[in-house]
Amino acid sequence: MIVSRRRLADGREIVYFDAAGTPGTRQATDTRVLPVTTTHSQCRFDALLGEWVVIASHRQSRTFLPPADQCPMCPSTPERATEIPEHDYQVVVFENRFPSLATSIDADLPAYVSGAPLAQLRPGFGRCEVVCFTSDHNLSFAELDRDRLVVDVWAQRTAELSAMDGVEHVFCFENHGEEIGVTLHHPHGQIYAYPFVAPRVQKILGQVRAHRHTHERNLFGAVLEGERSCGVRVVTSNEHWTAFVPAAARWPYEVQLFCHRQVPDIAALSGEERDGFVEVYLDVLGRFARRFDTPMPYIASWNQAPTRVGRADWWLHLQLFSFRRAPGKLKYLAGSESGMNVFIDDTTPEYAAEALRSVVAT
Amino acid sequence: MIVSRRRLADGREIVYFDAAGTPGTRQATDTRVLPVTTTHSQCRFDALLGEWVVIASHRQSRTFLPPADQCPMCPSTPERATEIPEHDYQVVVFENRFPSLATSIDADLPAYVSGAPLAQLRPGFGRCEVVCFTSDHNLSFAELDRDRLVVDVWAQRTAELSAMDGVEHVFCFENHGEEIGVTLHHPHGQIYAYPFVAPRVQKILGQVRAHRHTHERNLFGAVLEGERSCGVRVVTSNEHWTAFVPAAARWPYEVQLFCHRQVPDIAALSGEERDGFVEVYLDVLGRFARRFDTPMPYIASWNQAPTRVGRADWWLHLQLFSFRRAPGKLKYLAGSESGMNVFIDDTTPEYAAEALRSVVAT
Repeated sequence: MIVSRRRLADGREIVYFDAAGTPGTRQATDTRVLPVTTTHSQCRFDALLGEWVVIASHRQSRTFLPPADQCPMCPSTPERATEIPEHDYQVVVFENRFPSLATSIDADLPAYVSGAPLAQLRPGFGRCEVVCFTSDHNLSFAELDRDRLVVDVWAQRTAELSAMDGVEHVFCFENHGEEIGVTLHHPHGQIYAYPFVAPRVQKILGQVRAHRHTHERNLFGAVLEGERSCGVRVVTSNEHWTAFVPAAARWPYEVQLFCHRQVPDIAALSGEERDGFVEVYLDVLGRFARRFDTPMPYIASWNQAPTRVGRADWWLHLQLFSFRRAPGKLKYLAGSESGMNVFIDDTTPEYAAEALRSVVAT
Repeated sequence: MIVSRRRLADGREIVYFDAAGTPGTRQATDTRVLPVTTTHSQCRFDALLGEWVVIASHRQSRTFLPPADQCPMCPSTPERATEIPEHDYQVVVFENRFPSLATSIDADLPAYVSGAPLAQLRPGFGRCEVVCFTSDHNLSFAELDRDRLVVDVWAQRTAELSAMDGVEHVFCFENHGEEIGVTLHHPHGQIYAYPFVAPRVQKILGQVRAHRHTHERNLFGAVLEGERSCGVRVVTSNEHWTAFVPAAARWPYEVQLFCHRQVPDIAALSGEERDGFVEVYLDVLGRFARRFDTPMPYIASWNQAPTRVGRADWWLHLQLFSFRRAPGKLKYLAGSESGMNVFIDDTTPEYAAEALRSVVAT
């Protein structure tokens, strides 16, 4: 893998990733005149819930569904300069122009929110990156021919961002489909480097630690073993990975992909495990795409270990889920879910697994 | 308040609430032939997150946006029998025909989900009620002339449901607006009697207990005192209640209404406090309705104490929030929120408070 590091006109970093032996280093210069944008994000601590919240008020004016010929993630042409100066690329990562979290940030803040002596206040330090999976505007992840390169890029970004001072957690994800608010159609994912451990991971870590103390074994491993030996909720698997609908799924279609070996993050996966992931993931994505007449919108959410704490307890997995519960019907997070965090799932996990298993390849 | 208890054709309970001195007891009989519906909900324990999830697969076929002349919450007429047999009513509560949780439920379940030895399984015991705020199909909560009666009904239901064996938590809420998936336009709220403490309340209770041990005071009280003495995030207040945008708000428009006296639930409010709530709540709802050109969709979520645990620590409050961040723009819960539970708010709490304070009465 050839890694080429450049800067965009406003100083943001852009990193090209190309398969070994292919075009060589990337040299194109960003010819645009771009103002340096400043980020005024804050992290505020919600004392009642014990969770950090990001306040990013400068993002209201961000780009919203531009026409395809204005796509900022397509390669540049002689007529039009985009976010990617090169005229072609394989996989490219760049810092988001409208980031929720950034490395250069207003650090001159008081320690607490004014009038809220329990609400700790910190600058919105971190990093938000865009990962373009391919230069072809019209493909989806499931149609890529360089998926393994994407996995290697996630691994490289996880390692590099984890090594940054102040980054506590690296989150790689993809929002897919207009129904869930995706503002740009070009196939891409995102990476957030958080300055704290995300509440979901924090809470799971607490359960894993408690289970280790009472049962002397890893909770993730116990869950995976149960699903593999029973099989009723398994969608697909191979030597290195198993994809199953969790026994207490929250979403109408939710699949978790677990690596069979306990590893903390994507960077720790072997080459064979990366290839194995691609095989299982593409299989599951294909089933999501063909379950109904039109492809399901989805969120793909990598659950990685925090960068410093709990790494020996964690077990890497990907959570893939859709809000669509039936053709034309979305699951809304209403009072019970949004207000009380009590999820009500209208689909049984066993039915969802069987429905996904029954999807016929085309 | 006159309370009339009746049964619908399929055995579900319906309870009419009328202001004292008005029409007297309700006697109308449900003339429909309704099949007794069975509920096969399950509660499943997510061992990784340590939270209960409700699986309610029978609800897929529930009523979805019927035309106004088919509204099941309007009073019955000689030509059409609805869910409410009377030809008129003030406030009425009945058991949901498609409940996520029910009292008569398949109890013959194993203790764990098949193949998931850590996922405890329980019947979906509980109760889901519909609260019709008025017989007038076209009003909203903000336009009612019997709001105090609604508060008294919430109090009565909270007390009665809390006394049921197996009910651990009573949740009164209103989903308002089609944009958040409301399937019936008639002005109504819902009440869920959960057989467990909701994860949000469970988590807050942990923080409140920890704060009591380290600071020897109530965390809710400390938050309320800070907001009242600073005022920058206060939207409106009176002698008994203060409505403020929380310092670490998760939603573009989020207001919390705190009673000045520490009480565990709505049933514990005095008459004056109930009147005071109506005044502040209508003020805030009016601001939500007039903030943009069209009324904001919202979720109103009562945060009450669990029925058995933590009651001395709890402090009743209402959380009112909207997904709308700007005209025509909704906040979607995408990767960071849905995947990691890290909320990113594009509106600062101080801006939202000022915007709501600036709304001019019409």
